[in-house]
Amino acid sequence: MATLVLLRHGESEWNAKGLFTGWVDAGLSAKGEEEARRGGRLLSEAGVRPDVVHTSVLTRAIQTANLALGAADLLWLPVTRSWRLNERHYGALQGKDKAQTRAEFGDEQFMLWRRSYDTPPPPIADDDEFSQAGDARYALLPGELLPKTECLKDVVERMLPYWYDSIVPDLASGRTVLVVAHGNSLRALVKHLDKVGDDEIAGLNIPTGIPLVYDLDENFTPVTRGGRYLDPEAAKAAIEAVANQGR
Amino acid sequence: MATLVLLRHGESEWNAKGLFTGWVDAGLSAKGEEEARRGGRLLSEAGVRPDVVHTSVLTRAIQTANLALGAADLLWLPVTRSWRLNERHYGALQGKDKAQTRAEFGDEQFMLWRRSYDTPPPPIADDDEFSQAGDARYALLPGELLPKTECLKDVVERMLPYWYDSIVPDLASGRTVLVVAHGNSLRALVKHLDKVGDDEIAGLNIPTGIPLVYDLDENFTPVTRGGRYLDPEAAKAAIEAVANQGR
Repeated sequence: MATLVLLRHGESEWNAKGLFTGWVDAGLSAKGEEEARRGGRLLSEAGVRPDVVHTSVLTRAIQTANLALGAADLLWLPVTRSWRLNERHYGALQGKDKAQTRAEFGDEQFMLWRRSYDTPPPPIADDDEFSQAGDARYALLPGELLPKTECLKDVVERMLPYWYDSIVPDLASGRTVLVVAHGNSLRALVKHLDKVGDDEIAGLNIPTGIPLVYDLDENFTPVTRGGRYLDPEAAKAAIEAVANQGR
Repeated sequence: MATLVLLRHGESEWNAKGLFTGWVDAGLSAKGEEEARRGGRLLSEAGVRPDVVHTSVLTRAIQTANLALGAADLLWLPVTRSWRLNERHYGALQGKDKAQTRAEFGDEQFMLWRRSYDTPPPPIADDDEFSQAGDARYALLPGELLPKTECLKDVVERMLPYWYDSIVPDLASGRTVLVVAHGNSLRALVKHLDKVGDDEIAGLNIPTGIPLVYDLDENFTPVTRGGRYLDPEAAKAAIEAVANQGR
């Protein structure tokens, strides 16, 4: 039996401003930093001790991991980062105001872009100020792998190789694994773990800063579907708040 | 030609109190945090862009790396940690006041413990409150590898396998490598790089928070002995301050 802990990064400066962020490298807000520390304290209090850590290559997830691990006195844990754990690439919407986008394109189109499983937003242009073309952190990524937009289906497809090749081997060796990532890369992982349907996933929100613990069986399948949040009351309230974003 | 950058962690809470620290896991002081950020800014300003990072498993070095990388907008770099980059284990002196130890044992014994190449302090007892026996971060280390005290010669011997097996391959693949570590693990590395004699090394101090850049030839030998500090004036002043510690 293996233990997997998922932690979504706290509020970023762009979340706070109500902007579509995606692969834009916004840092945590002061509130997000505190959420991250609370995540670390929740781990300590529950006696959940990760052995290894995986993060995306986006600053807000790495800051969250560093602050949570610092609060849990676990900064020394080995850590691996991958673009495959990044947030969904939001295409041409990156940098746009969420409420304004909703007003401009209407509720239906807005919710399609936000929640459709297989409809990505329009691709971002390489010369857009919020494009990642030329970003040094993706310099080793062949052009055909660097997304210009993504739907959740795309995120599942690019995330799963990392799950199978890097996370599962850690779990298989008996380690407790902490994954610090983003709303949509974690939804993609939860969809895979809990076998959530393509339609059902639209209604699944993961709160920020509250560790979600999965005990997995020998096939890396959850013993309890949906896992357990270390602060269930706060998780419930936060899930409702996420669902209301952009309203 | 490869580039190696060495960064010694900033002032820790125990440095500030004048205590022998060694493997005790003291965090950075506020001054140390600022030194770390300055180290990151110096890297940015000099256009020195590491590709990979290596740290010890001690919190003060990891915090220094995180703050420096944050200041340089490079938190996403891959990072590897090893006990082989830890500070020298100070044996039974860990947790003792430096000035008080000097007064109690006399200048000669004090300087022997601090600066002799091959005379370690007395070993620490496993039940000493400042022992690392039972510390989770060394749980996978066989007992015969976990030091109870070290002289600088011991540090050279346990550090070199990491240099050869983990750092040199990064350099050989053309990467610029940042090593964030400690006064004595970095002195051990500089001793090896610059072929400093066993006696001569006693007089070599490395300042905190100022990146030391080595350009290395195809044999991983420095092109210029001693490398170059990114802030030479500050380095000179800091080296003198380190030499006066415990006075």
